[in-house]
Amino acid sequence: MKNVDHIGIAVRSLEESLPFYENVLGFTCSAIENVDSEHVKVAFLDAINVRIELLEPTNSNGAIAKFIEKRGEGIHHIALKVDSIENRISDLKNNGIQMLNEVPKEGAGGALIAFLHPKSAHGVLYEICEKKPLKENDSD
Amino acid sequence: MKNVDHIGIAVRSLEESLPFYENVLGFTCSAIENVDSEHVKVAFLDAINVRIELLEPTNSNGAIAKFIEKRGEGIHHIALKVDSIENRISDLKNNGIQMLNEVPKEGAGGALIAFLHPKSAHGVLYEICEKKPLKENDSD
Repeated sequence: MKNVDHIGIAVRSLEESLPFYENVLGFTCSAIENVDSEHVKVAFLDAINVRIELLEPTNSNGAIAKFIEKRGEGIHHIALKVDSIENRISDLKNNGIQMLNEVPKEGAGGALIAFLHPKSAHGVLYEICEKKPLKENDSD
Repeated sequence: MKNVDHIGIAVRSLEESLPFYENVLGFTCSAIENVDSEHVKVAFLDAINVRIELLEPTNSNGAIAKFIEKRGEGIHHIALKVDSIENRISDLKNNGIQMLNEVPKEGAGGALIAFLHPKSAHGVLYEICEKKPLKENDSD
């Protein structure tokens, strides 16, 4: 769990925020996809050592819409890459960590993801994510 | 500006939060230092690809104390590594970005730092930081 996969940032609109990330900060947008189960449209921006995941709510039902309604746009979560998410969830629970998801769910890019309860993580919403091994470029 | 140097996280107490980061997540604490100008005590935790900077307020006057008072513990900022902070501040201002610091100030580890106004960055507090070239292990 020592590899930060991405930093998730809630934005009102990808269209309005991407020019800042691409033209001002100089990041490259590598993919945009809908994650219907999470009620978001996601843009991945590649920094050199970590990815930024911009999350735009696609309706008012999801966690990102509620986050923005409550706090405005901003940093939403930190995702840590894991090899075996089922084992990690067990380990975390054995360490007394409360999980928001005790069973992994599917996230962007087909990854299996689960969130730790921020109350167990000093206020930070940590995601753990297990990537599908892909033949293209996602085997790191 | 494409290299994420660290993710800054506001905590009430390093003593109370470090066991989660070290024993549960498995990060290594590489340094703890006081940054008097920012009214914080800082712990650096090394993930594989990026550092986590835990920030504990040392009094009620600084930005971190006010952040925790308003929002509770949580993710505070994302720091991007730059080569020449003065040039980057000029570039950002030329791009219409409002800076919280138009003149760099000294941060943890003797780095020169400046913050972008979150209103110019879709709600995210971005720091840019220029590291002093050190002989030991900080030349990346």
